[in-house]
Amino acid sequence: MQFSIPPTAPFPALQARIDGKTKPAGSLGQLERLALQIGQVQRSLAPTLGQAHLLVFAGDHGAARAGISAYPQEVTWQMVENFLAGGAAINVFARQNGLQLQVIDAGVAHDFGVRAGLVDAKIAFGTNNFIEQAAMSDDDCQAAMTRGAAIARQHADRGCRVIAFGEMGIGNTAAAALLTHQLTGTPLADCVGRGTGLDNAGLARKQALLAQAAGRAALAPDAPALRVLAEFGGFEIAMMSGAMLAAAERGMLLLIDGFIVTSALLAAAAIAPAIGDYCVFCHRSAEPGHQAQLRALHGEPLLDLGLRLGEGTGAALAWPLVRAAAAFVNEMASFASAGVSEQR
Amino acid sequence: MQFSIPPTAPFPALQARIDGKTKPAGSLGQLERLALQIGQVQRSLAPTLGQAHLLVFAGDHGAARAGISAYPQEVTWQMVENFLAGGAAINVFARQNGLQLQVIDAGVAHDFGVRAGLVDAKIAFGTNNFIEQAAMSDDDCQAAMTRGAAIARQHADRGCRVIAFGEMGIGNTAAAALLTHQLTGTPLADCVGRGTGLDNAGLARKQALLAQAAGRAALAPDAPALRVLAEFGGFEIAMMSGAMLAAAERGMLLLIDGFIVTSALLAAAAIAPAIGDYCVFCHRSAEPGHQAQLRALHGEPLLDLGLRLGEGTGAALAWPLVRAAAAFVNEMASFASAGVSEQR
Repeated sequence: MQFSIPPTAPFPALQARIDGKTKPAGSLGQLERLALQIGQVQRSLAPTLGQAHLLVFAGDHGAARAGISAYPQEVTWQMVENFLAGGAAINVFARQNGLQLQVIDAGVAHDFGVRAGLVDAKIAFGTNNFIEQAAMSDDDCQAAMTRGAAIARQHADRGCRVIAFGEMGIGNTAAAALLTHQLTGTPLADCVGRGTGLDNAGLARKQALLAQAAGRAALAPDAPALRVLAEFGGFEIAMMSGAMLAAAERGMLLLIDGFIVTSALLAAAAIAPAIGDYCVFCHRSAEPGHQAQLRALHGEPLLDLGLRLGEGTGAALAWPLVRAAAAFVNEMASFASAGVSEQR
Repeated sequence: MQFSIPPTAPFPALQARIDGKTKPAGSLGQLERLALQIGQVQRSLAPTLGQAHLLVFAGDHGAARAGISAYPQEVTWQMVENFLAGGAAINVFARQNGLQLQVIDAGVAHDFGVRAGLVDAKIAFGTNNFIEQAAMSDDDCQAAMTRGAAIARQHADRGCRVIAFGEMGIGNTAAAALLTHQLTGTPLADCVGRGTGLDNAGLARKQALLAQAAGRAALAPDAPALRVLAEFGGFEIAMMSGAMLAAAERGMLLLIDGFIVTSALLAAAAIAPAIGDYCVFCHRSAEPGHQAQLRALHGEPLLDLGLRLGEGTGAALAWPLVRAAAAFVNEMASFASAGVSEQR
């Protein structure tokens, strides 16, 4: 897969526009840096965000049956049903903040039939157990990325300029931990957390099983991202990686949620490093491995609320801040236009 | 002035409702604590926030003419005009996030005439220079607090349940620094910052002048809050303190902005300590003295974006998070209602 993603370029004219607004220079802090980034991504002095779309990719993990999660695997499809019924946290936050929600079956171990509101992009009924074998074939990994890319391009074709990413998949903090270990070189122990709420014994068991998986795969430090995704990834993670690459290639802004979504971004960034320029890191997850991911990607998250829910909730909650950054550039008066005296 | 503000009570039934929602227990982090707080303030398992009102109190400071700010005093009234014209940052963020904005002239050194959209609560045309004498008489301080309380009660009478606080006043970080020093016992040097953007020389000058003001007033450590406000406060600050006390007394939720607004809260909390239970700390200001305030009030801010603009911008930006906290309690499905398996 080839993606052409250029780094964004400096934009001194936009910085000057930001500095001319009726506020002390720099006083909007991180929102000013975000406003500059949005303008750089869109190459516009007057960035327009429009309707953001939140894509929630769902998939099951063979390893979930090995006891790496506090919840049984069936919760993946039950939560997809909850999404379709509008009762999950992500439904509430997307509704409140005006994001259009789309749920994508990337590989849930359940037959949903044909369902309104559910995109069927299923690669298989869950991955293999990565403790024993590669989670998926390289071909299936490629297929998942290709479908993700196609979904992102469809959105671009319809004029969408912002995609937020979310996910659901029991066991996927385990997959994300292995991906983070392999793609950042962080010791595995620092990448593994309690996920949905393991106790100490459960965490120790998860640590041991993931060490076993890493040992089995025995990937070289420079193994290609597609191989890493195939060994450890979920279908939902690989599909997000493909969608992210296509979205950045089309000049969209990417709203990055927490630990799982960022693991997909790590793989995408290994393929096209400039993708980071297109990403807004929406929150700092309470899952410890997220810190290693943010360090590797130089991410500066907008929110730090101790969230560890996933589904894209951090992205949905941060969306008003992203809108605010674009809005102040477009709507605030300048010192000159408002007749306000400048700094002495 | 007497205000009856009881501490909020524990609410285990609401905690149980939060824990029954379809998410791992505690996975919404700070939003869960906020949801519990909102329910405690309203004594309701189904809190309703309704339309939030953002009150921006403006006032001038005699000390501004002594060279404690990077901007000239006339910027206060110019920015009030900017608020009325809709061109300031707070206008943009209040519009975007659906807060009703009201601008209150608490004591600006300018004759606005009768103006639509501006509440005339002017005590005087700016305070005295607190470097040389008390900023205001005790009677004027009392009058400012009484007018603030009346404004808050008007909102309560109309059914408003959430008031956000903002301010404008060139020189008011200097006033806030003195209030914080006096009301928290923090060394003055740790309370003084660059405000709207002083350089090193300007900061040193501000430090020296404020030390002079503190020495002149020579207040006892246990001086009553009204005396402290009269010595150092602005009319906008004293008016906010009164409004906060009345709002909490009426069971409203208070959205606290940054350094200046929190200095008003320090005075209010010295009068009625339980007021903190009614406060949402919206952001962590880049102004260094805000840290001492948050420590004294045990505040856990929602946002940490390096903001230092004031006007209530941090409160307006945090409002969607407050709404999200109430919304998930009211709108999310429970494990039972959605048929989702619980933790093993």
